[in-house]
Amino acid sequence: MNTFGHLFRITTWGESHGGAIGVVIDGCPPRLKIDIEVIQAELDRRRPGQSHLTTSRQEGDEVQILSGVFEGQSLGTPISMLVWNKDAKPSAYEHLKDVYRPSHADFTYQQKYGIRNWQGGGRASARETIGRVAAGAIAKQILREQEGTEILAYVKQIHTIIADVDSDTVTLDEIESSLVRCPDATTSEQMAEHIDQVRRDGDSLGGIIESVSRNVPVGLGEPVFDKLKADLAKAMMSLPATMGFQIGSGFGSVMSTGSQHNDPFYNDHGRTRTRTNNSGGTQGGISNGENLLLQVAFKPTATIRKAQETVDIHGNSVTLSAHGRHDPCVLPRAVPIVEAMVALVLVDHLLRQRVKSL
Amino acid sequence: MNTFGHLFRITTWGESHGGAIGVVIDGCPPRLKIDIEVIQAELDRRRPGQSHLTTSRQEGDEVQILSGVFEGQSLGTPISMLVWNKDAKPSAYEHLKDVYRPSHADFTYQQKYGIRNWQGGGRASARETIGRVAAGAIAKQILREQEGTEILAYVKQIHTIIADVDSDTVTLDEIESSLVRCPDATTSEQMAEHIDQVRRDGDSLGGIIESVSRNVPVGLGEPVFDKLKADLAKAMMSLPATMGFQIGSGFGSVMSTGSQHNDPFYNDHGRTRTRTNNSGGTQGGISNGENLLLQVAFKPTATIRKAQETVDIHGNSVTLSAHGRHDPCVLPRAVPIVEAMVALVLVDHLLRQRVKSL
Amino acid sequence: MNTFGHLFRITTWGESHGGAIGVVIDGCPPRLKIDIEVIQAELDRRRPGQSHLTTSRQEGDEVQILSGVFEGQSLGTPISMLVWNKDAKPSAYEHLKDVYRPSHADFTYQQKYGIRNWQGGGRASARETIGRVAAGAIAKQILREQEGTEILAYVKQIHTIIADVDSDTVTLDEIESSLVRCPDATTSEQMAEHIDQVRRDGDSLGGIIESVSRNVPVGLGEPVFDKLKADLAKAMMSLPATMGFQIGSGFGSVMSTGSQHNDPFYNDHGRTRTRTNNSGGTQGGISNGENLLLQVAFKPTATIRKAQETVDIHGNSVTLSAHGRHDPCVLPRAVPIVEAMVALVLVDHLLRQRVKSL
Amino acid sequence: MNTFGHLFRITTWGESHGGAIGVVIDGCPPRLKIDIEVIQAELDRRRPGQSHLTTSRQEGDEVQILSGVFEGQSLGTPISMLVWNKDAKPSAYEHLKDVYRPSHADFTYQQKYGIRNWQGGGRASARETIGRVAAGAIAKQILREQEGTEILAYVKQIHTIIADVDSDTVTLDEIESSLVRCPDATTSEQMAEHIDQVRRDGDSLGGIIESVSRNVPVGLGEPVFDKLKADLAKAMMSLPATMGFQIGSGFGSVMSTGSQHNDPFYNDHGRTRTRTNNSGGTQGGISNGENLLLQVAFKPTATIRKAQETVDIHGNSVTLSAHGRHDPCVLPRAVPIVEAMVALVLVDHLLRQRVKSL
Repeated sequence: MNTFGHLFRITTWGESHGGAIGVVIDGCPPRLKIDIEVIQAELDRRRPGQSHLTTSRQEGDEVQILSGVFEGQSLGTPISMLVWNKDAKPSAYEHLKDVYRPSHADFTYQQKYGIRNWQGGGRASARETIGRVAAGAIAKQILREQEGTEILAYVKQIHTIIADVDSDTVTLDEIESSLVRCPDATTSEQMAEHIDQVRRDGDSLGGIIESVSRNVPVGLGEPVFDKLKADLAKAMMSLPATMGFQIGSGFGSVMSTGSQHNDPFYNDHGRTRTRTNNSGGTQGGISNGENLLLQVAFKPTATIRKAQETVDIHGNSVTLSAHGRHDPCVLPRAVPIVEAMVALVLVDHLLRQRVKSL
Repeated sequence: MNTFGHLFRITTWGESHGGAIGVVIDGCPPRLKIDIEVIQAELDRRRPGQSHLTTSRQEGDEVQILSGVFEGQSLGTPISMLVWNKDAKPSAYEHLKDVYRPSHADFTYQQKYGIRNWQGGGRASARETIGRVAAGAIAKQILREQEGTEILAYVKQIHTIIADVDSDTVTLDEIESSLVRCPDATTSEQMAEHIDQVRRDGDSLGGIIESVSRNVPVGLGEPVFDKLKADLAKAMMSLPATMGFQIGSGFGSVMSTGSQHNDPFYNDHGRTRTRTNNSGGTQGGISNGENLLLQVAFKPTATIRKAQETVDIHGNSVTLSAHGRHDPCVLPRAVPIVEAMVALVLVDHLLRQRVKSL
Repeated sequence: MNTFGHLFRITTWGESHGGAIGVVIDGCPPRLKIDIEVIQAELDRRRPGQSHLTTSRQEGDEVQILSGVFEGQSLGTPISMLVWNKDAKPSAYEHLKDVYRPSHADFTYQQKYGIRNWQGGGRASARETIGRVAAGAIAKQILREQEGTEILAYVKQIHTIIADVDSDTVTLDEIESSLVRCPDATTSEQMAEHIDQVRRDGDSLGGIIESVSRNVPVGLGEPVFDKLKADLAKAMMSLPATMGFQIGSGFGSVMSTGSQHNDPFYNDHGRTRTRTNNSGGTQGGISNGENLLLQVAFKPTATIRKAQETVDIHGNSVTLSAHGRHDPCVLPRAVPIVEAMVALVLVDHLLRQRVKSL
Repeated sequence: MNTFGHLFRITTWGESHGGAIGVVIDGCPPRLKIDIEVIQAELDRRRPGQSHLTTSRQEGDEVQILSGVFEGQSLGTPISMLVWNKDAKPSAYEHLKDVYRPSHADFTYQQKYGIRNWQGGGRASARETIGRVAAGAIAKQILREQEGTEILAYVKQIHTIIADVDSDTVTLDEIESSLVRCPDATTSEQMAEHIDQVRRDGDSLGGIIESVSRNVPVGLGEPVFDKLKADLAKAMMSLPATMGFQIGSGFGSVMSTGSQHNDPFYNDHGRTRTRTNNSGGTQGGISNGENLLLQVAFKPTATIRKAQETVDIHGNSVTLSAHGRHDPCVLPRAVPIVEAMVALVLVDHLLRQRVKSL
């Protein structure tokens, strides 16, 4: 269904060109300060049109809180938030009404439902992530204020360009000062140039976003199915365009032996820590207090301006050429979305851990 | 919690050395043929001690069906299955009672619960997967008989040794005829030799399991959070020792541009298909009828015989040396587990899809 | 949480004097005709101010559909609906800020959350039922069009006045033509007079609503916990002011013996039916095709104008006198709410039943 | 599905004459003392054959704990318990294979599933409640030890015989010293005689069970759908043979006006209490600290020895006469089941309340 989380549970709704896009948070504890400015700031990070590199759609995306907050504090009741779809121009999509765009959801939605809103992607649009980011902004506030947890994400790789980033020390300022949200300044410029080149070619690029979370409480994650790494994997793979997820040493772990890969424990002034962090902050699916480290692979954006072979809903071969501007690389905008998803997973498990002690 | 799936829902229970290990399936449709021999055969594939390469524990792992089946058919009521823990020798673990084994769940369980069953890994033991495999065996039967869906998995890589497998044509026989469940015969032998060498060294290896599913119905997977790729990612990352998940072109997708990566649609005698399958069988999170292709990375097994630095629960530094035999590479036994998890995800979404039509 | 239903799942949100009140329906099958006029008509039945007997608040309660519907049809994606709180006058509730109204939720909310929106009941307001009625209107449409199921409710008793109604033959017109939604014309007038008298006294009345559903498909309801009667009981007891629920012969069943109470089966032209319907349309928790018959007891409304003894949040004794007009009997307005809840339970089980056949 | 509860979640499984009956508890907090003797004692209270008044089946019903408990303490992992079906005699039910017993689940199961285990009621058997009672025994231990909560139930009425019981002072000893679990000694004898008479007639009786819980923490229950009264209603109406549920003044509340029915608050030495308890311990769906008072109506048992008219699965009219002994009144045995369900609801909400504070 359209719900994520068990105790801090969000339900998102909305098509890209229906009336509005929104989210309902159920399970937010009461008496927490809710700052709408902070939520809006996160939405602004996600918004298209932040630079000449991205799509020119200018929605504004101003969030409204409709319930669950009273005099600046959470009530413990559902928090409903919405953003109106101001920029909707259905007619601009008329030519896509009967065409299956390659590597988009058009074909599968049509097969699954026998109906689809063909205006701008409908439910499969990236606009759906607005609700995630708004809810994630509240989750981040809770984690920061209750546990001192800091959640960061940044662009680690675009196409063949790989950044050099120290996950232990990277700061939000370093990330935000980059046009492409890559905190490695030299690489950042190369990435921006490459994206701009590809944009002019009418093509698109993918890449890897890395996320680090510091001061994660020990003990988050449930054995067996709801392991922290499993819920994080689901969170990331539920994002549009994601193709892979890895935690800690990830796929690279297979290149070492057990004696090389195991993280030895040691006593760090009374606190049990590990000397290495190949595990990426979880063991047995439960956070161990080390930095939570993960990577997500995004394929190159499916929407390109270059001509493509495809078929229409009647099975006729057609050549598709996208009109207007397009977003050649979503990774910079996806950074706050990845952070939001990490935050939603962590806050849910934080609440679940509260139940453990009677 | 210890439950997986929404409509075909399994709940597993049991510690490695408690009385028994089991699973309850809730939501299995009625009047389906349930063949206990088929279930047992899958459990036998998962069982340790199949070759000299694996751990010598000989449980037998004979499954009993306690409810939900009547005269060989499902009743529509919960199917309860269990396997007794016959080989339990708690005393063999006495020396581990107070020690945190590196990259195991000992430390995190202790922190999370303040108590743990230290006998053989307790709930974090690989024996927990018995319930998954038993339930998955039923899921596989349903998919095969109802939809003709075939689910295969095999060892694609161990350490640095990579197999050459054609996912379109590989057969179960090719997989099962290999000691390490790698259908590339030459590579299979190299892998077996390498594992045996590492076992003698007291060390361990990881690797990559690849899975292909053929004849997957179009339309499985839900938009947004319960995308097919998201539920598969969660399924795989909920397995012990998994470090990464990718679908289709996965992490490799970032090396191409959109025009290279998009899968063009064409009309194949009335059926809409894609010329390439970089998407790995899902688009917009929904199956498109192409082969479902995924890979899972397993770290080298944490249990090794080599001496390791660690601490005990009192914070004292200790050196840990595992006794007896160990399993230097779990991948061959993990193959049926990966298949089971794919089957559980697919059958759940098959049932969910039934609800779409009124 | 604020979610009801398993496959046709609604999440309601909103306080009585926050920005808006709304509902998200997740799981509505695609390609169903959604008529907003029908939804609005049900909301109008629930709306206060329909007669001089009820509260004078005039909200209009105009519903907006924000997502999930495209060109008059359901998309299969979440249907989000909201009603703005136009008539909010927080200042009118200032005197209630620190007072616990007897038999209201003020005290328990304050204890549970440590915070509450004291304006008009906040989340505990009857306005919350707007979302239920809007969602129920869609559920009713589905049941009527797919199964020919008709769901009716009516006022059976107010205070000591009991109506004489034949549940087999009563019609919607008979119900709606009564000011108090009691289809027994003579009794209806007595009820209306009695309510008006009590209103002038500043007091309030409760009563019993009866509901009959005809053409309910056989087989709805799940064994054990999600029995149809259990889900109906939960649905009704989740409404404000409800004190009791009974199905079929209900509490009266205890006055008969088994041989008197059992419903004998007979063959009615090829259809297995029961000669009596003491079971109220369900056996073993599953619908048997007979009329679904239930009753719900509502206590007299807690809000009265008469002076009452109570305490404030500091523990001081205070005397409370409600200002302005009040609603002396909510039962007429509760009739469409009861119908909505029956519809929500039935449509959820209708979808669940679809999963049973592969 | 076959699951009840959100955070303290039980899944029951088993048919009356399959291999076994069992329950899995997921969500039991760790480090709680689990006393199997206490669980067995509750099962013994539920067991048939406790007196000449009940069915003669002698199962023993010895419970085994298979997981989740280690050295007498809960691990925080799933607690799996089972009871073997020792007394199964399928052949005794052969004559019922094709017959729909009146007011039983035979017809509806057959319609729903197209298959049923016709041996002794299958999944619809009262034996299913074994799992509930075993899990409830743990819930009761938790509530007693953590909160001092005492949960009692007793027979309030059988047929026309009504007991006089003071719910404020009644004790477990008074209840258990009665053959029929009616703490009013005089009435108890009348009830026992009446049951015995009806048993000899081959007929059966129903009645009302009342339950009182003392020292219930304030704040249990969620607004809107998961109100405490709603979850209790569902719990009770999920039991076989229940026809009605009421809380506090229940159906009787309709006979009073608001000014008579409202429970005035007062300050009782610093604690806010109510002078009356018409609300039955909950307001706004949330516990207020007063005694939790509820009643459940059970119809007369459907199984009788008297001849009854019915049809078989082919639609032929047949006359059914039950063989052997029967249980003419299940209420005495249902008392521990009602207690168990109250405990399961309360402990679930106790855990849910823990999440409210960060």
